[in-house]
Amino acid sequence: MSKVGTPKGTRDFSPAEMVKRNYIFSTIRASFEKFGFMPLETPAMENLSVLTGKYGEEGDRLLFKILNSGDYLDKTPENLLNEKNSRALTKHISEKGLKYDLTVPFARFVATNHGTLSFPFKRYQIQPVWRADRPQKGRYREFFQCDADIVGKESLLCEVDLIQLYDDVFKNLKLDGISIVINNRKILTGIAETLGAKDKMVDMTMAIDKLDKIGKDKVLDELRNKSFTEDQLSKLSFIFTLSGSNVEKLNAMKEYLKDSETGLFGITELETIFKHTDKLGVEVLDFDVTLARGLDYYTGAIFEIKVLDGSMGSLGGGGRYDNLTEIFGVKNLSGVGISFGADRIYDVMTDRNLFPDNLQKFLDVLFINFDDDCASEALSHIKNLRHADIKAELFPESDKMKKQMKYANDKGARFVAMLGEDERQKGLITVKNMQTGEQKSVSPSELIAIVKA
Amino acid sequence: MSKVGTPKGTRDFSPAEMVKRNYIFSTIRASFEKFGFMPLETPAMENLSVLTGKYGEEGDRLLFKILNSGDYLDKTPENLLNEKNSRALTKHISEKGLKYDLTVPFARFVATNHGTLSFPFKRYQIQPVWRADRPQKGRYREFFQCDADIVGKESLLCEVDLIQLYDDVFKNLKLDGISIVINNRKILTGIAETLGAKDKMVDMTMAIDKLDKIGKDKVLDELRNKSFTEDQLSKLSFIFTLSGSNVEKLNAMKEYLKDSETGLFGITELETIFKHTDKLGVEVLDFDVTLARGLDYYTGAIFEIKVLDGSMGSLGGGGRYDNLTEIFGVKNLSGVGISFGADRIYDVMTDRNLFPDNLQKFLDVLFINFDDDCASEALSHIKNLRHADIKAELFPESDKMKKQMKYANDKGARFVAMLGEDERQKGLITVKNMQTGEQKSVSPSELIAIVKA
Repeated sequence: MSKVGTPKGTRDFSPAEMVKRNYIFSTIRASFEKFGFMPLETPAMENLSVLTGKYGEEGDRLLFKILNSGDYLDKTPENLLNEKNSRALTKHISEKGLKYDLTVPFARFVATNHGTLSFPFKRYQIQPVWRADRPQKGRYREFFQCDADIVGKESLLCEVDLIQLYDDVFKNLKLDGISIVINNRKILTGIAETLGAKDKMVDMTMAIDKLDKIGKDKVLDELRNKSFTEDQLSKLSFIFTLSGSNVEKLNAMKEYLKDSETGLFGITELETIFKHTDKLGVEVLDFDVTLARGLDYYTGAIFEIKVLDGSMGSLGGGGRYDNLTEIFGVKNLSGVGISFGADRIYDVMTDRNLFPDNLQKFLDVLFINFDDDCASEALSHIKNLRHADIKAELFPESDKMKKQMKYANDKGARFVAMLGEDERQKGLITVKNMQTGEQKSVSPSELIAIVKA
Repeated sequence: MSKVGTPKGTRDFSPAEMVKRNYIFSTIRASFEKFGFMPLETPAMENLSVLTGKYGEEGDRLLFKILNSGDYLDKTPENLLNEKNSRALTKHISEKGLKYDLTVPFARFVATNHGTLSFPFKRYQIQPVWRADRPQKGRYREFFQCDADIVGKESLLCEVDLIQLYDDVFKNLKLDGISIVINNRKILTGIAETLGAKDKMVDMTMAIDKLDKIGKDKVLDELRNKSFTEDQLSKLSFIFTLSGSNVEKLNAMKEYLKDSETGLFGITELETIFKHTDKLGVEVLDFDVTLARGLDYYTGAIFEIKVLDGSMGSLGGGGRYDNLTEIFGVKNLSGVGISFGADRIYDVMTDRNLFPDNLQKFLDVLFINFDDDCASEALSHIKNLRHADIKAELFPESDKMKKQMKYANDKGARFVAMLGEDERQKGLITVKNMQTGEQKSVSPSELIAIVKA
């Protein structure tokens, strides 16, 4: 039998991995709900008309496309087949694709249902997405996104809400040494205006976006190639020199952008946000004017979660976008959203050993199976334990003790319970604490108390 | 913009639907874990070599197939293109498909990892599966399965465990008026042997399987067409007349099957199971010798959940299978599993109004936004409420009161909080109970106490 593994770039999640992932998801979900976000799910597949053209040419290429059912070649133009024109043939034999992110399907949902939604519409989604990307370390073809968005209000209090949400989740995960980096697209526009390079806004931002990876000099080289003048580049260099507190950086940029109305508006927006987050004690919010992110999408505040020791890429990001739903025919719905990168959070938490010890305890009590009479009585006890929300089970065969104890160990059982003939006559259960090795005979109700303690 | 809906047979789940679905899933998951089942997830897509040939010809046809990436026609035999031979072309342009159920991917997982697993391996999976079936009421192309299986032990105590698990879940969902119907494949084999029709076992079982839908006479007609003799049919008719208690039915079948060793073995298995479940107080287990289910798969006990008022199909099913993993090269791993049909459970619970009232309360407290000063102070209170695990938010604009109250209503907010200038000076918050309409001014800590009460 060939190929009994999973397809390239996809993974099984074993019980040991699942409990760690679920710990991350349930922590994020709890914060989402405390902050008033409501759950939503969209299908794995979408019509290609919904997906294509939303992620650029590269994105279209990376969509997993689903072959039409039945005799899909029946009405296909013959010349495309003769020419072996894969690219042109696709739209004749495939109508659906797997979703590439959670945002476009969410926009479709809002566009379709906006008449019945109450705004601000705050929803969260925790679901897998698929990309036919070349798999490599930390990059998968199937991976989970955790998104929270607020749609329909332009108030900066939405941004404040999302920043607190990031802060809350990372605190609850005990993941410190991270920074919520913030910038504003209007400030980047202001910089381009200040350089007299408004028309080269995209080039500028794409180059700045690489600062972390290639360094300042190479960013400037790249801009030189895009015919930025030395004068413009020396003006731009100022933004790489910013330091000090958020207020100091904002003040310096206010001076720098004094001739750009848009730029100054971006500064004011950030000042409003900082006014609230400072008061609310969010200490990890950092203004970084070199934060760029995908320009064609975001229109106001942009966020990114950086790990301070720099060993890992971003743990999440987001920002304010105008007209999320305009592509689906519904205008004037501004929104702001953030995303958590669950896979990278998993990796950082594994490195730092941040998962609670008890996650791998899949069982509270294993009853050893000595014989049929013992088994029969154990089942009654197990029923009562489960009724008390205790994870309990009986080894289903009267196998060797060593084998049963190994099973208890493998499953992380906290206690092993034994019902020998002697105990049965006295109405007792011998319970062994698997951590301390301590062993004693107790009544059924004492057993529940011990396990619950 | 055409086609902004979801693909045919797939659905968005709105917040109102999500909380009901999550209630079902979390109830099932809690029981799974109490019973010692461990979580597992497999990818949405599998290699077609894993999926095809496992579900019969019909199943192969219903697999959603994923188009290969890149220039997928490049190495395709030209004659298949010229002939427009869709069926033969598929295997050249598609290597992966969406999973059709949770069982085959689980078998693949066990086969690949059996060297590292501890047996009995008890796992649960709650994940979507996909079938390119014709959509109709209650039948979707993307739907969730909730499976629990015990692999690697032949002990009937595994069956007892799963029957209790069914019982536990339906009790916790307060879903009564259901029956866990049980039969045994060996008993069906015994019946075929008793009729002297062992070679027509498949025909017999397929006909009996339709009893609920077409009635006894048409079952017999169908068997007549499959050249069962009148003598055989009159012998068979006995099984439709069985009535009384489980013990009475088992005794009658024991007499009926007295010449079939296999049949009697099936009876003994059920007797052992009933001995335990009776003692454990499972009242809804019903022996029905006409329960058939997919024969090629199951080899021992088979289960099905029936709704007694008969308005709805099965809410779940399962059974014992031999050699789940043999198709993937690993022999002698018997297993037994059950499945919950989440969509049908959802429908029955909706019909009977069984969901808790508070599910649609997406918010505990909405703070009304009067102006910037009010908003700023509200944010501090909200921070403390959330810290106390209370779902709280501020309306992000100082919009009309009516609009803000409508938002609170739409979100099912339990309380609305107001911070007028007067309250702010006194350090109080006016809180309105949205259910009773009662309104009073309280301190911040009193507010927490009221919401938590």
